[in-house]
Amino acid sequence: MSDSRPEGGTALTRLSRLGYALPAQAPSDAEKYVPYRHDGATVHVAGQLPYLDGELAVRGLLGRDVAVQAARALARQAAVNALAVAASAVGNLDRVRIVQMLVFVASTSDFGEQSRVADAASELLVEVLGEGGRHARTAIGVAALPQNSPVEIQLICTTT
Amino acid sequence: MSDSRPEGGTALTRLSRLGYALPAQAPSDAEKYVPYRHDGATVHVAGQLPYLDGELAVRGLLGRDVAVQAARALARQAAVNALAVAASAVGNLDRVRIVQMLVFVASTSDFGEQSRVADAASELLVEVLGEGGRHARTAIGVAALPQNSPVEIQLICTTT
Amino acid sequence: MSDSRPEGGTALTRLSRLGYALPAQAPSDAEKYVPYRHDGATVHVAGQLPYLDGELAVRGLLGRDVAVQAARALARQAAVNALAVAASAVGNLDRVRIVQMLVFVASTSDFGEQSRVADAASELLVEVLGEGGRHARTAIGVAALPQNSPVEIQLICTTT
Repeated sequence: MSDSRPEGGTALTRLSRLGYALPAQAPSDAEKYVPYRHDGATVHVAGQLPYLDGELAVRGLLGRDVAVQAARALARQAAVNALAVAASAVGNLDRVRIVQMLVFVASTSDFGEQSRVADAASELLVEVLGEGGRHARTAIGVAALPQNSPVEIQLICTTT
Repeated sequence: MSDSRPEGGTALTRLSRLGYALPAQAPSDAEKYVPYRHDGATVHVAGQLPYLDGELAVRGLLGRDVAVQAARALARQAAVNALAVAASAVGNLDRVRIVQMLVFVASTSDFGEQSRVADAASELLVEVLGEGGRHARTAIGVAALPQNSPVEIQLICTTT
Repeated sequence: MSDSRPEGGTALTRLSRLGYALPAQAPSDAEKYVPYRHDGATVHVAGQLPYLDGELAVRGLLGRDVAVQAARALARQAAVNALAVAASAVGNLDRVRIVQMLVFVASTSDFGEQSRVADAASELLVEVLGEGGRHARTAIGVAALPQNSPVEIQLICTTT
């Protein structure tokens, strides 16, 4: 039907083939807020950093400390963490439908490749969810992010 | 039921106990846009600066000009101003239910404590609204904000 | 009824009187994501840069490289591009109703006039759509934007 249609198996299988596990609970420094909130059928997922096993592997700015390839891996990890929250909100990763993704890239004032960083997260969403992973997106370069993370991702989702 | 359940009285009473009054109308430099807009039952509140009596008490960047504690007070004030708009949209502060909060913190490139600033606003929402104040959240560090405000807050709400 | 009520004719006519054509398809570097996504009746439009005929006329930061007047023209162009996407989502520019606009302005840390830049986009929306163009808005100053664009605009819309 479309070349963005994912190969067979569940979304979890496809995620696993890409080398990612879904964290039991997306890591967060959140006691003051919740990982997601429903508004009718819409799910707002809190901004996710690229934590892996409770650690941020890389800190700093694109254009100064962090290369685009490294940031692309971080963007994928942050997207996986956001998917974990979305899956727990919806009850099943296969039923998650992405509506909108905001990608924040900690950037020097002269860095202009935020889209290449964000593309890595966009690709992952479509690889895992197929048509349900296609989304509107806004990528911007910010001065700094919590914990000096190079990347942060916020999703708005719904259920297929 | 939950330790985030607010003590008795109205939301306005709880706000008052915290030392805040609800401004009659949230201050804004807005003639070109509106303080809120409905999309069905969802209310989008325009970004709010920490104006108090028409003044911005502090200007500048976290990590250079403004301490975390001072910025936390500004985040609470911006949240109060956003609540004022939400209350006027919904008709009653007690019926406001927060869905999502975006917290923008004007930051140097090496500042990484945006979450501590945002936590102050998150706490206030729960103290005032209880369960209805619990929200998904994204905190980011931006280069600068209108009027050189250190903090700006945007809310998405609905009605309980 | 209101002085924001547009003069006669279609929204396209009013846009044309302001000197803008609606691009056939809003330009974008997007193969990895889609220009818009529906969530029920709500339309999330992907972030739009001020491309005109496939080109970004100006690059750089407010407060260093780009004057406010030049950035206001870019904000209007980005808003036109976002309207083009919204019109294709809704099927008819006259039926587009704007809910929320996020305006990102690439700024030095001492620039504080993001609202003046964003006002140009807000004015255009109301000039073209009348009451349906009135929106909640958040304007922020970011470190950098894709392609070193000085301005990026994201819209949430619905249908009148």
